[in-house]
Amino acid sequence: MGLLGAGVVGSGTLDLLARRGEQIARSIGARLQVRRVLVRDLARPRAVTIPADQLTTDPSTILDDPSIDVVVELMGGENPAVEYIARALANQKHVVTANKEVIAKHGPELLDLANRNDVNLFFEASVGGGIPVISVLRHDLIANEITSLRAIINGTTNFILTAMEQGRSYDEALAEAQRLGYAESDPSNDVRGTDAVYKLAILSTLAFRTNVRPSQIGCVGIDQLRQKDFKHAAGMGYVIKLLASADVGAKGIVASVRPTLIPTSHHLASVKGVFNAVLLDGDQIDKFMLYGQGAGARPTASAVVADLCAIAHNLQRGVIDRIEIAPQDRPIVDPGDMLSRYYLRLQVADRPGVLAQIAQVLATKAISISSVMQHETDETTGVAEIVIMTHAAVERDSAAALAEIRHLDSVREISAVLRVER
Amino acid sequence: MGLLGAGVVGSGTLDLLARRGEQIARSIGARLQVRRVLVRDLARPRAVTIPADQLTTDPSTILDDPSIDVVVELMGGENPAVEYIARALANQKHVVTANKEVIAKHGPELLDLANRNDVNLFFEASVGGGIPVISVLRHDLIANEITSLRAIINGTTNFILTAMEQGRSYDEALAEAQRLGYAESDPSNDVRGTDAVYKLAILSTLAFRTNVRPSQIGCVGIDQLRQKDFKHAAGMGYVIKLLASADVGAKGIVASVRPTLIPTSHHLASVKGVFNAVLLDGDQIDKFMLYGQGAGARPTASAVVADLCAIAHNLQRGVIDRIEIAPQDRPIVDPGDMLSRYYLRLQVADRPGVLAQIAQVLATKAISISSVMQHETDETTGVAEIVIMTHAAVERDSAAALAEIRHLDSVREISAVLRVER
Repeated sequence: MGLLGAGVVGSGTLDLLARRGEQIARSIGARLQVRRVLVRDLARPRAVTIPADQLTTDPSTILDDPSIDVVVELMGGENPAVEYIARALANQKHVVTANKEVIAKHGPELLDLANRNDVNLFFEASVGGGIPVISVLRHDLIANEITSLRAIINGTTNFILTAMEQGRSYDEALAEAQRLGYAESDPSNDVRGTDAVYKLAILSTLAFRTNVRPSQIGCVGIDQLRQKDFKHAAGMGYVIKLLASADVGAKGIVASVRPTLIPTSHHLASVKGVFNAVLLDGDQIDKFMLYGQGAGARPTASAVVADLCAIAHNLQRGVIDRIEIAPQDRPIVDPGDMLSRYYLRLQVADRPGVLAQIAQVLATKAISISSVMQHETDETTGVAEIVIMTHAAVERDSAAALAEIRHLDSVREISAVLRVER
Repeated sequence: MGLLGAGVVGSGTLDLLARRGEQIARSIGARLQVRRVLVRDLARPRAVTIPADQLTTDPSTILDDPSIDVVVELMGGENPAVEYIARALANQKHVVTANKEVIAKHGPELLDLANRNDVNLFFEASVGGGIPVISVLRHDLIANEITSLRAIINGTTNFILTAMEQGRSYDEALAEAQRLGYAESDPSNDVRGTDAVYKLAILSTLAFRTNVRPSQIGCVGIDQLRQKDFKHAAGMGYVIKLLASADVGAKGIVASVRPTLIPTSHHLASVKGVFNAVLLDGDQIDKFMLYGQGAGARPTASAVVADLCAIAHNLQRGVIDRIEIAPQDRPIVDPGDMLSRYYLRLQVADRPGVLAQIAQVLATKAISISSVMQHETDETTGVAEIVIMTHAAVERDSAAALAEIRHLDSVREISAVLRVER
């Protein structure tokens, strides 16, 4: 095989193959052999030793070499990874990738290309690191109609939210995540929810057997959250998580990534730090959950090597596993149609009648209030903070109501708008 | 295919195949077709309609019919199921079974027979119902060295323990489980731990790639537990679960099923009612957990049909998946060697020096006490109850100490001896 990329996951994969090659060979009856490794800089020091004659900076020495059966893409990013994967498949090479962006955006087309060329494209490592959720959806739950999916699938944001739950500010939590290597120096891909959207697109597509594109998924990040939101939430029996949700409703599939209040008794409430979890509702199995390390070199390498073993197994027998993604074809509903309860935190002038005004606007959109807490007024500014919990409302209506409320004279700021999960 | 048994799981499987046959056929490119169903009584009314010409009371019309490719064994019990499975494999039929007793006791020999006859023997439904733990261990964690396994794998006992946690007595909880169909009229197989031992034997064998026999697994049931144990445990921050544990230590594999105090913050503490969960430690993935419905017609049928789909997939391609169980061959350690903390509840005479005597006996076996609670004395009998938490001790030493303590003049009864998990 040929590896594209020898960064954290690439090095982890090479290390795992070196340490456990013998045992894997005994289990699957074949030896996984690295022929060539594409890197950007031949001279750069690496976590693993790669023989100099395996290193290359020329992708064609892997993609076009007929002696290479399997290409492992671990470069990340959309380009040039997508072109390399397509070229490998067109050259009838099996491909294993950990690239969520490529699979989320181009998965159906690439799988089609793989099928036409009689090769496998496997991507277990693209979602949930060491959690084999792709394999479970493809094989083990095949007889189920999946109706709902709830997931914590971004370790960086879950680490930040867990730290905030323990009392840290957003900036402190982010800085700590960066110091520990859990967040990049530019964390926007994680904290704005983009990474979780890619993963949710892949999971929904497999779970519901319908192509769900990243652009069809609603997305709100965690950067609006403040320490006090966690305190308010805890007081009402909730934790805050960046929740990836997808449901099959009467109108079709609706999917979104949103910071969400989750009851402390909920299965996903106890998922802390960099751990991930995927909770599914299937008509045969009812509730089902997978929990584990969502990222990192070792769990991700574990998933890459499991895919490689499946391909080696197939190669020996001259067969392939086809993944047909969309035999069903449900409509995708605008995330604005999603029904949810809301947590609203607002800064308002501390004078009589303000709450009545806000309640009035909500009522015109048929949104009823479940509870209100008014917190102490800041004496210097005369601004009071109120937290409103609503009953279930359609997202579009709630957004329209909030747009009106924002323009009320007495409203200084809408500081947080969060979903509330039952 | 031919079905052996049309009870709860058999009917559930036929129902699922009838409802989802079309979709499964689209996914795997083959139709699963039932040829014959073995039953005890042709006339008996059933949950599903089975055409009269499919029903048979003669197993040879399935086991020896060359037109049947796959035999699905859902009769349960060791005999005659094990003979039927062996005969089907010898006749080069693939076999799917949900039979934990047969796989736990005869799995390695039957897998060997399957391999020699070039057919598959699949048994996903034998452990954890809708939780695909067998598949995950066989395929997805292939690159991991599993070092530890903790599981709640008996729904009946977990239902009873959850009800006791909520204040019910053992007898009330058992009666409720029987009324709801979760416990059989003779519940001993569940409450004495035998069912959990079978499942742990299967899981340990796959996880550690070493044959672990039911007879090598320590077993204690839940029938010693009383309401007050749950109250004492809760007061110290614990819940009580029937925990299946297996570890790889320096001397080998040690496995046991024991009622165990688990901290409320532990991942398995929140597994309630008839749900099951399996928590694994792998060197690549660290902590990993599967959670879901452990039994019942629908989840079990989901697992049976997933196995059938894998076999149909292989049949079309003319290949098989071999399961080689024991390439490693670690020694199995006597469960008496297991190291654990203990919770002891004793009835003692309320007079000075009793605790000192007990502590003295424990000290001779190098078992140190972590905490003691003495509860109010029953004035009419003069008997006091004490609860002792020990530091870690070897099970054999603790048993020897308890045998001595039992013979102390002042000790009326040792009412409960429970493991304590960190």
